[in-house]
Amino acid sequence: MKNPAKSAMIVIDMERGFIEPESAHCIRTAKATVPACSKAMAMAREKGIPVFLVNRIYRADGSDVESTRYHAWVAGGKAMTPGSTGMLSYEMPEGMEPQPGDYTLIKPRFSAFFQTELDLILRRLRVETVILIGTTTPNCIRTTCYDGICLDYNVVILPECCSSQTEEIQRVNMEDMERVGAKLLSLEAFAAYDASNAPSLVQEVCAAVAADETHPE
Amino acid sequence: MKNPAKSAMIVIDMERGFIEPESAHCIRTAKATVPACSKAMAMAREKGIPVFLVNRIYRADGSDVESTRYHAWVAGGKAMTPGSTGMLSYEMPEGMEPQPGDYTLIKPRFSAFFQTELDLILRRLRVETVILIGTTTPNCIRTTCYDGICLDYNVVILPECCSSQTEEIQRVNMEDMERVGAKLLSLEAFAAYDASNAPSLVQEVCAAVAADETHPE
Repeated sequence: MKNPAKSAMIVIDMERGFIEPESAHCIRTAKATVPACSKAMAMAREKGIPVFLVNRIYRADGSDVESTRYHAWVAGGKAMTPGSTGMLSYEMPEGMEPQPGDYTLIKPRFSAFFQTELDLILRRLRVETVILIGTTTPNCIRTTCYDGICLDYNVVILPECCSSQTEEIQRVNMEDMERVGAKLLSLEAFAAYDASNAPSLVQEVCAAVAADETHPE
Repeated sequence: MKNPAKSAMIVIDMERGFIEPESAHCIRTAKATVPACSKAMAMAREKGIPVFLVNRIYRADGSDVESTRYHAWVAGGKAMTPGSTGMLSYEMPEGMEPQPGDYTLIKPRFSAFFQTELDLILRRLRVETVILIGTTTPNCIRTTCYDGICLDYNVVILPECCSSQTEEIQRVNMEDMERVGAKLLSLEAFAAYDASNAPSLVQEVCAAVAADETHPE
């Protein structure tokens, strides 16, 4: 059976423009998570879990940059557009390059789900659980987490593979996401993640709702 | 001119089931914000700013409760469904009842935008800025803030009219939202809010993009 854990790994915004210290858009601790991300992606592929690389690539005229970021994006040299090179490029770092069998998607906003085809593909693949890694925790990881819960996916986050500008932001955002129902897993615990222990709260709730004979109203 | 500030006030989840201490779903500091919310809503109406009351009303069979909250919702007496009464009801507290001219919407998830007609109505009304009040800061206010930014609205938040389970959650979430581009306004500052000082970053960025002759690619 393909993908027995019915899961997908979503790798978010790990592009040079967000992780290189020389870029104006650098997330302070993102580069340090590259080895952990790379390891998590290899583990996922080994388990038959499809890997989705969901990255920003901005339009060169800025028409798809958030208004609240537009001026910083212009000042920072219009990074991560089709012509961007070096530290400003949207290339993924060494060890995280897309592999045959991976899905690559471009997202126009924070959440990997926001006006992308991610949900459509996950449904087609019968995925029930999304496993989130990448950057930044308070923005792209968190909005993807909430959208995932809203679209009825089980959400798993690997905190060792996520990054924030400060330790407090990282900690409090992880706590908020755990409180709202995301499951935080260490890389070590993820090594043992398979169909036998994949969380299936959504499946369980679907069964409970199906068994409830109250009229919906 | 109707609504000269081109703004809308979005009042989120201020229902008895979320604010009464006797409800299992009570947000600790929500009830204390009722007078501030009531004042903010009166100010908005006076300024010609439409007020949108966006609340949860769960289906009685639980089919639209987030999976991560389903068990707590059942254990808490299936609050905020069409038949709920008293402390479990979806009634708004005294002083915050809908007034003639307000819009009332039901939302199925955290964000006031998620699969509701809010964006459609705001576009039709030519609204450029959403002003958020209600509960809870880390969930419904924050997801609405991010969706608002993503959908190209200026986002204003009145922190005195928002609530969280702890002071740390309230503080760090407000800081995250400010950092991502929301404008935090005191009630006092909101008293002076009108067309002459309504933030219009989105309008300014639209003009900058229109003036940029780079091909989009």
